[in-house]
Amino acid sequence: MGVVTSGGDAPGMNAAIRGVVRIAYSKNFEVVGFERGWEGLLTNSFRRLTPRSVGGILHLGGTILHTSRCLEFKKEEAITKAAQTLALNNVDGLIVIGGNGSFQGALELSKKTGTPIVGVPASIDNDVYGTDETIGFDTAVNTAVTEIDKIRDTAVSLERIFVVEVMGRTRGFLALTVGVTAGAEMILIPEVKYENEEIFKTIREAKERGKKSAIIVAAEGIGDTRQLANEIEKATDAEVRLSVLGYTQRGGNPSARSRLLASLFADKAVELISEHQKSRAVVLQNGKITSMGLEESCVTEKPTDLSLLALAKILTT
Amino acid sequence: MGVVTSGGDAPGMNAAIRGVVRIAYSKNFEVVGFERGWEGLLTNSFRRLTPRSVGGILHLGGTILHTSRCLEFKKEEAITKAAQTLALNNVDGLIVIGGNGSFQGALELSKKTGTPIVGVPASIDNDVYGTDETIGFDTAVNTAVTEIDKIRDTAVSLERIFVVEVMGRTRGFLALTVGVTAGAEMILIPEVKYENEEIFKTIREAKERGKKSAIIVAAEGIGDTRQLANEIEKATDAEVRLSVLGYTQRGGNPSARSRLLASLFADKAVELISEHQKSRAVVLQNGKITSMGLEESCVTEKPTDLSLLALAKILTT
Amino acid sequence: MGVVTSGGDAPGMNAAIRGVVRIAYSKNFEVVGFERGWEGLLTNSFRRLTPRSVGGILHLGGTILHTSRCLEFKKEEAITKAAQTLALNNVDGLIVIGGNGSFQGALELSKKTGTPIVGVPASIDNDVYGTDETIGFDTAVNTAVTEIDKIRDTAVSLERIFVVEVMGRTRGFLALTVGVTAGAEMILIPEVKYENEEIFKTIREAKERGKKSAIIVAAEGIGDTRQLANEIEKATDAEVRLSVLGYTQRGGNPSARSRLLASLFADKAVELISEHQKSRAVVLQNGKITSMGLEESCVTEKPTDLSLLALAKILTT
Amino acid sequence: MGVVTSGGDAPGMNAAIRGVVRIAYSKNFEVVGFERGWEGLLTNSFRRLTPRSVGGILHLGGTILHTSRCLEFKKEEAITKAAQTLALNNVDGLIVIGGNGSFQGALELSKKTGTPIVGVPASIDNDVYGTDETIGFDTAVNTAVTEIDKIRDTAVSLERIFVVEVMGRTRGFLALTVGVTAGAEMILIPEVKYENEEIFKTIREAKERGKKSAIIVAAEGIGDTRQLANEIEKATDAEVRLSVLGYTQRGGNPSARSRLLASLFADKAVELISEHQKSRAVVLQNGKITSMGLEESCVTEKPTDLSLLALAKILTT
Repeated sequence: MGVVTSGGDAPGMNAAIRGVVRIAYSKNFEVVGFERGWEGLLTNSFRRLTPRSVGGILHLGGTILHTSRCLEFKKEEAITKAAQTLALNNVDGLIVIGGNGSFQGALELSKKTGTPIVGVPASIDNDVYGTDETIGFDTAVNTAVTEIDKIRDTAVSLERIFVVEVMGRTRGFLALTVGVTAGAEMILIPEVKYENEEIFKTIREAKERGKKSAIIVAAEGIGDTRQLANEIEKATDAEVRLSVLGYTQRGGNPSARSRLLASLFADKAVELISEHQKSRAVVLQNGKITSMGLEESCVTEKPTDLSLLALAKILTT
Repeated sequence: MGVVTSGGDAPGMNAAIRGVVRIAYSKNFEVVGFERGWEGLLTNSFRRLTPRSVGGILHLGGTILHTSRCLEFKKEEAITKAAQTLALNNVDGLIVIGGNGSFQGALELSKKTGTPIVGVPASIDNDVYGTDETIGFDTAVNTAVTEIDKIRDTAVSLERIFVVEVMGRTRGFLALTVGVTAGAEMILIPEVKYENEEIFKTIREAKERGKKSAIIVAAEGIGDTRQLANEIEKATDAEVRLSVLGYTQRGGNPSARSRLLASLFADKAVELISEHQKSRAVVLQNGKITSMGLEESCVTEKPTDLSLLALAKILTT
Repeated sequence: MGVVTSGGDAPGMNAAIRGVVRIAYSKNFEVVGFERGWEGLLTNSFRRLTPRSVGGILHLGGTILHTSRCLEFKKEEAITKAAQTLALNNVDGLIVIGGNGSFQGALELSKKTGTPIVGVPASIDNDVYGTDETIGFDTAVNTAVTEIDKIRDTAVSLERIFVVEVMGRTRGFLALTVGVTAGAEMILIPEVKYENEEIFKTIREAKERGKKSAIIVAAEGIGDTRQLANEIEKATDAEVRLSVLGYTQRGGNPSARSRLLASLFADKAVELISEHQKSRAVVLQNGKITSMGLEESCVTEKPTDLSLLALAKILTT
Repeated sequence: MGVVTSGGDAPGMNAAIRGVVRIAYSKNFEVVGFERGWEGLLTNSFRRLTPRSVGGILHLGGTILHTSRCLEFKKEEAITKAAQTLALNNVDGLIVIGGNGSFQGALELSKKTGTPIVGVPASIDNDVYGTDETIGFDTAVNTAVTEIDKIRDTAVSLERIFVVEVMGRTRGFLALTVGVTAGAEMILIPEVKYENEEIFKTIREAKERGKKSAIIVAAEGIGDTRQLANEIEKATDAEVRLSVLGYTQRGGNPSARSRLLASLFADKAVELISEHQKSRAVVLQNGKITSMGLEESCVTEKPTDLSLLALAKILTT
């Protein structure tokens, strides 16, 4: 059985690798880990993983197998090469731990080869269709919320407006959950159009009610947050600062929930491989671990829960 | 509308209070908060809560309303007195934030009065029937896991066995989730009988395989952990230490998930009160917020997911 | 006795306020706290502080008195107004908690009035002459180091170079200590000139030795870090990312050391006021709490310990 | 050059090992690390350490060389065996990273052999004479304070008294600094005799003033804290709980300060070895890194700063 981590790293990837290896061994599989994402499948670069070799990694961020964003992998010949690598090493099944992009690659590879391939959703962006949560999401949310708790100290003490940019690529899942749980006065996500004038108005009204500081959580996907901060400052005559939380959201020890999800996903993934199931994605649906077609997960856009945005508005009045 | 926090405190209780107050106001309710748990209903001790007065508490542990374990409340006359307090203050509905014991009290009170009473499950023990998770549970798990990550540094460096006692009262929910996500070599919970000899054997075998340190997570409900640690030391000739994690598990800033759950539960609870529904408990079931009869939640014992225990065994081989 | 927090906020300011108030009361002084920095002295906006009213703030970031950067305060008439406020309220002594800029203001005010004024150095930048450490510095260092520990997970997993910009205004004290303790491969501070070509060379050489990731800690005072990151990427053909740690460095619960320093400084400050000493600054010198002339502290530039930079280079080879 | 970590582990030991190895290499020394404390010198168990092999350990708690409390090492023949091991491996100098007990062993060994031996103080107890601070102390203080911040949430919410036992072996350095910075209402250390009646009185008086919760920080060295908690409960009619912080204080990622101290101590230790100095201890005195005779450090009892205790009393009134 092979395992690979691909795309952006997410806290809990190591927990998933550990889970895959130890559960696979309990079912008498051997496991090889391909290194540096798809690159390892193109260069046949891997190492044997044993229950011992994945000891002491459960609580570590990043991925011991390393990862990469492999643009080359979108080409036909790369997929062919990867399929050859799987065949060459007698890999009976491949578990791909990663996000949307990695699932696309896994799907292409799956079509090219008869080998069962299972996707395990791991991404701080939580933008994989079909799963309520991805490995790493809960950790990233907590990291961002903890940082915003700190920023609020300054916001309140200096009576300032802060625009806080959080990650999430083109989607607003991270920003939405962070915004609600950090008590942000406003949450801006790409899925919901807004007029700058609305923002200005909200801030002006809050100021009149005596609320002198505010946290605006903005998903990176909404565009230029620097410019937004400048425009708010100009329009409202308040002191506005921008804070881009950045890469700390990707790292750090995984939260208990990210570790648990990684372990449960790993269990399901090994089960699917041992049943020779092809092109499946492990998912969390309605609180239960299950699986779905990898293709369906790839081609469908994950919907946004707008009721949460409405609730957030009420919670910060 | 009234709100009260009762029983042991749990991180996220303040987030729930904030949620209740702000959502209630958005529906034109006024809110009073009874102080020190049921005691506030016996002594008619309360304060008016406004959207402003619950500002800046979302991220704080404990409860601004204070709480207590009120043994007196089990008596008939106490319930009568509490019912009078509700009537006296024209409270149209009462939201009780707490665990099992608080739900019992809420049920008794509900039977005595016509006032709609809704239970919101908040407890680090996660032992409330009908809900997959209680407010504060995720925070307590993370606190315990973070502490065990630290203890492991010493366990490995000094090649010792650690018995780590975690909370949970009579149940093992906290110990089980902590054990799995901290990578404990053994998990002891009251729901599963074990023989000391099994423990000794497991440790001896691990020692023979070259594994010189181990973490045994034990729920407080299993009995005397001090004695257990001594017996393991005697039987295995290993250095064994006991660490009782204690009250840090009850406090601290709530995790993002505990805050989110608190907000969603608050939303549902206010909705139920505004619909004049009586004796309901807000719960999380299969990933969705819903409600169930308060009595059913009170009288039914929450089952333990033993498959998680089996998985834990495989994950630490 | 009066107390004011001024300039940028720093974790531990509340611990200092608490210390000043409680120690002052033990010596039978009463204390008023001016609000929003110098602005409170211009508008005569203050509140009475008692030992009770400063309870529960020891561990909170920010400042309950709020603060501001008050540009107006550089003008003669503002100083005159502030002196009148002190006289009007019979303030026998004023304790100014803040950084370099606040000390300048305190000095001006001190010259204008007969009232004893004592400066207490609080700043995450640690750029106050005469003191080995300022309140908040240790907290900011730990916050930045913890965040870089997380960023390193991604740097290693994706084999990338990270430029991490830390605060410090025009100086490199924060960047230097953060760089050494985070194990940064390079540390760039305004006090030491460097050629871009040196940076490129170091990265290329590390790459040849097989080291594929690196953390470069850069003080905000060195200039445009975005451009630097771009230039490194172009010159070394490595993947380079920029992370601006930002305002989280200003907030958060103060570290034990920042709290201790705040308490000891407060003790000394109250002692100086009670001795009617004028224009003094409380400082930490060679591990001891003492005081020096406020003017000397203001007009002298704090030297940089370059031996630490040399040690850092050896430690990351 | 040899390096060994001995006695109880302390956060920052790895940072010290890394520092010793990299600085030694920069001076053209080779380094071997003896494993499991003195045991490694008795069994000639060691590994070669290179600048690469100590990469990625700066921020980890515990010690990669492992450690032990080696009672056997107090015997003459053990010392002789260790001296032989040093000679056998042509070790020109030995750096011993540890606390009081380890310094004793180092002194004995130093008397037996001509090899330069340097002690580097690392201990969470901070009980080594001659140094203002030991590696790991600052980390342990912060860990304990963070935990007490959490316990206070419960103490306040439930209006309880908490006795919090912190480590420190026979001394009160850890308890004292933790108590001051956590804002404990009382601090009990072995160096200061107290009557239980005083404690009861203080609690009763606080209760009368309306303060219903309190944190009493007690050093483990004062004796049976369980009994103390029971006696307080009986005498004051308050609800009293005991929390033993335990082994979390030993582990965890070292704080920035512990890392810095470890690096600076390592630098000095290698310098002393390269100068062939015998039986020295590296110390921090008045904010400067220097050295003193190992014997003086061993035989002298470190004094307690009682003024800090007096200040603590004022700060919590």
